Amino acid sequence: MELLETIKCPEDLRRLPQDALHRVAEELRALLVAVGATAGGHFAGSLGTVELTIGLHYVFDTPRDQLVWDVGHQAYGHKALTGRRAGLPRIKQPGGPSGFLRRTESPYDAFGAGHAGTSVSAALGMAEAVRLRGETIRVVAVLGDGGATAGMTFEGLNHAGHLTAPLRVVFNDNGMSIAPNIGGLARTGCARGYFEALGLAYAGPVDGHDLGALLPALERLRDTDGPSVLHVKTRKGKGYLPAEADPFGWHATVPFDPASGRRRSDAAGGTPSWTAAFADALIRVAERDRRVVAITAAMPDGTGLDRFATRFPERTYDVGIAEQHAVTFAAGLATRGLRPVCAIYSTFLQRAFDQIVHDVALQRLPVVFALDRAGLVGADGPTHHGLLDLAYLRIVPHLVVAAPRDENELQHLLFTAVGGDTPFALRFPRGPAAGVRLDHAPRTLPIGRAEVLHEGADVALIGIGKTVAVAQDAARRLARRGIRATVIDARYVKPLDVTTLAAAARSCGRVVTVEDHVLLGGFGAAVLEQVATLAPETQLLRLGLGDHFVEHGPVQDQWRAAGIDADSVAVSTARWLQHGVRAGRARRSGAEPVPLRTVEQPVPS
Amino acid sequence: MELLETIKCPEDLRRLPQDALHRVAEELRALLVAVGATAGGHFAGSLGTVELTIGLHYVFDTPRDQLVWDVGHQAYGHKALTGRRAGLPRIKQPGGPSGFLRRTESPYDAFGAGHAGTSVSAALGMAEAVRLRGETIRVVAVLGDGGATAGMTFEGLNHAGHLTAPLRVVFNDNGMSIAPNIGGLARTGCARGYFEALGLAYAGPVDGHDLGALLPALERLRDTDGPSVLHVKTRKGKGYLPAEADPFGWHATVPFDPASGRRRSDAAGGTPSWTAAFADALIRVAERDRRVVAITAAMPDGTGLDRFATRFPERTYDVGIAEQHAVTFAAGLATRGLRPVCAIYSTFLQRAFDQIVHDVALQRLPVVFALDRAGLVGADGPTHHGLLDLAYLRIVPHLVVAAPRDENELQHLLFTAVGGDTPFALRFPRGPAAGVRLDHAPRTLPIGRAEVLHEGADVALIGIGKTVAVAQDAARRLARRGIRATVIDARYVKPLDVTTLAAAARSCGRVVTVEDHVLLGGFGAAVLEQVATLAPETQLLRLGLGDHFVEHGPVQDQWRAAGIDADSVAVSTARWLQHGVRAGRARRSGAEPVPLRTVEQPVPS
Repeated sequence: MELLETIKCPEDLRRLPQDALHRVAEELRALLVAVGATAGGHFAGSLGTVELTIGLHYVFDTPRDQLVWDVGHQAYGHKALTGRRAGLPRIKQPGGPSGFLRRTESPYDAFGAGHAGTSVSAALGMAEAVRLRGETIRVVAVLGDGGATAGMTFEGLNHAGHLTAPLRVVFNDNGMSIAPNIGGLARTGCARGYFEALGLAYAGPVDGHDLGALLPALERLRDTDGPSVLHVKTRKGKGYLPAEADPFGWHATVPFDPASGRRRSDAAGGTPSWTAAFADALIRVAERDRRVVAITAAMPDGTGLDRFATRFPERTYDVGIAEQHAVTFAAGLATRGLRPVCAIYSTFLQRAFDQIVHDVALQRLPVVFALDRAGLVGADGPTHHGLLDLAYLRIVPHLVVAAPRDENELQHLLFTAVGGDTPFALRFPRGPAAGVRLDHAPRTLPIGRAEVLHEGADVALIGIGKTVAVAQDAARRLARRGIRATVIDARYVKPLDVTTLAAAARSCGRVVTVEDHVLLGGFGAAVLEQVATLAPETQLLRLGLGDHFVEHGPVQDQWRAAGIDADSVAVSTARWLQHGVRAGRARRSGAEPVPLRTVEQPVPS
Repeated sequence: MELLETIKCPEDLRRLPQDALHRVAEELRALLVAVGATAGGHFAGSLGTVELTIGLHYVFDTPRDQLVWDVGHQAYGHKALTGRRAGLPRIKQPGGPSGFLRRTESPYDAFGAGHAGTSVSAALGMAEAVRLRGETIRVVAVLGDGGATAGMTFEGLNHAGHLTAPLRVVFNDNGMSIAPNIGGLARTGCARGYFEALGLAYAGPVDGHDLGALLPALERLRDTDGPSVLHVKTRKGKGYLPAEADPFGWHATVPFDPASGRRRSDAAGGTPSWTAAFADALIRVAERDRRVVAITAAMPDGTGLDRFATRFPERTYDVGIAEQHAVTFAAGLATRGLRPVCAIYSTFLQRAFDQIVHDVALQRLPVVFALDRAGLVGADGPTHHGLLDLAYLRIVPHLVVAAPRDENELQHLLFTAVGGDTPFALRFPRGPAAGVRLDHAPRTLPIGRAEVLHEGADVALIGIGKTVAVAQDAARRLARRGIRATVIDARYVKPLDVTTLAAAARSCGRVVTVEDHVLLGGFGAAVLEQVATLAPETQLLRLGLGDHFVEHGPVQDQWRAAGIDADSVAVSTARWLQHGVRAGRARRSGAEPVPLRTVEQPVPS
């Protein structure tokens, strides 16, 4: 990699003669394969943009010119050319580069990203600012055909066509979102008609792997002065045969043997993931209930709906990167008697908050939301954690909000949700599930009923979802110190089982809530708001995430730093019981748990 | 109106010979003018859809066939033809029809609406359900060209083009959103190119006021079997000359004299609205700071940005009904040193929750959100209240959340927001502002600092925004009963002035929070979460909205029903202080305020 090593920044690249760029591309592709083989991560997307990345930095004057990538799946090559080559083998690891784009990481990351479809809007804002200020800076958005299915991309393009701002869009069309791309636009292939109808000048398509064609096309794009699109055709996984053959499977990867393409086994080992458990449960429920249909927003693999689709192809919908539509489409299905299950990552469901309120809850339609990747997600970092969902969902009238502690409760809750007549949200985390045996058949769990798993007189530990296991483990650790803990699976955040929780609070006097969610407005806050009145003389310690974004890194480290792993919970609880100090070990974390002693008097009637 | 009176339901309409429909149209238009003159409300939109409404109910077999209107601004005629004619003069009044669409109001309202852009997604869900179940029901979405600027409409169309579902879309193109429509698509006029690129069959345009052309076109649409669009050109305000001349001004109206078109004066009288106060403040701030630019999502009038645009045309952006884009576009502007102010109604900003988190707060970009219509909005009802914003905004790291008590504080907070380096949300309600004099120049208000307005030893009343005046008024009423109240303007919900609030709590022992917002996760919850620890022996009564949607009606009635008007607050507080009963008068309301006696011990370090 002799040439690549001389490129510390794009300025160095731009000093090379044009005929050297093929070699840069070769070396960059080899680097990406080596990095993927060692570190894993998003893979096939960046292989497809090798020439495009080189071309953009060669033709445009970065970082003065603003390069706005969409999502970041495809920007590893960009990172390599902009001073972050040495760090790439530690991508997504603590201290290593983010797997996505971050303004704080590099001046070459003009806009942060991690969710798809933001590039056109952000770049149009930059282009307008440049115009208003009379600057000569150029702004280029690199939009994938997957990102083009997002409504906000349309909104941005439509606004760009209205303005005279010199927005430049590279439409990187590899026919893929993560999975094969969805939508009428992908089907008709009328990219020109689409962009021109919105008022953008269109050029292309050009072969995005042919630098001889690509560079002059980029130069023409550089020299336009109105809103313009250059359509570039690329191949996801280009240059690494296993990935070319299966770009969907190689979208993201675990480390692999570069010669054979054989993946190293996943660290999760034998326990199936929550995603797999959800997929299995959904299939079981759908076998019993013909009304059940499933919806994914361009994540059939990530949500497990690929398995559901194999079993029930006609009852599965991939709507593209279109969470707003996914939810209101589900609402429409529900009006006609079906039971749609929207399987959307917690962080992406934020895109559809208004639709949940306005189209589902207000109309009390029985749509089920299955929020995968709730809580801390580890290596994907701050754009991908699902730390806000309990707070933004529990304020919505009519919506039931629940979280299963294991895959068995997951199947029961899903069955309960589908069998009911009310909107229902179900969150579960990334990673391996609990590994418990499943009951023979799913059954209804009474809505708003918690489960007392263990009784002890000294303190009540209340968990929700994955933190129930944490509470159980912490209780075992506390037992070794002679502290007897009640352990409760709250199961429902809304409606909260006020009776059971208040009874436990009254009998123990001290309550600890544990959540993989921000403390502000979260599960512990719900307990505080609703239980305190009924539980006189109770003190409450809330453990959860503080008011900050959480960096990428191993998920276990994130749990420990937040003070919500079993050891931290046990230590915090023991110290709090013994000394009343502020949350013991957790205090050193970013979790900012606050011990609240709430003493309530029974209210005279 | 002899013919109209014979039409109890569309079945009656369908029994008429086709040549009688012109007379129905005449009568319906006269009815709409009479209703508008008497009751006010959304006006010009429905005048433009008279023939279309008649045609749709004449050609389609409603309510078996599903008619999905977008928003509802244009559906008064639909209400008249579907059994709600007699109620129309009481539209938006208690017991009268909603100003929008509601499934609970009529079987002819196939889907509820109030926010734009939902019709295609909902109708596509219905059409798919119909196909899956092998039914022969037809589904028609009536999409305005304004609603077509919403990203979710694109998402729905793109998905429709991918499926084979027999979705029928009537594209009602009057060249207007509320204001003249925005976007490249409106500029190029390439509707055919747009829809065909997305894979929908396109027919039109036809004159939407010519029944002779419209009826056969609707019949052809009825008889298609794939996703199809019929492009209908209509004129907003059609048939009432003042509205035809100024359709923007007549989008919604107060009651008027039908002969002259002269409006009856607004009930608000002399006090300027919060909207006007915001517009004035923004102009003042922008005069001092050249970095300030303003963004509206198709609401220049409603947000007051029309006034800003008159003063600073080159610094104003109307992006269309595109809240997601509005926010990320603002983020892009902010990266280049500008200070964008996004003026978006509280309820519509729900559309951009993810963009606030992912594109603004995570990147810590100084975007200012001005949330008009926060709290209870009165006649527009459950789709339009802004009752969730404090809860969904205060959980977002880095975001400052504030609410001014009067127009003077508004100008200072806006100045503070624009002058800072952090994202900042500012909420204020619909209706007349406080009517106070403005300080000569706006100044910075320290972030996270509350203001003690009055000191009293018996109870601390803490308000936020409009409820500060409620607290002041309640304090005066309590004083007459010998109860001395401290009154505090919290001003910032985040960061909360924990020091000031805790000090007041400690000195009074009893705290009452009042908010025009849901109690779950709201302002009182923030006080509970963050202040209780520091204020031992304090009891807290939280007054606000309960966990339910609030029906349309006069805003004063809504405040009273929620127990947050001054009289209710005074009564609740007095009873609580004297008897400890559960929230006194407020208990009879839907507000579900819960008296919380929180007693905190100082924590040993």
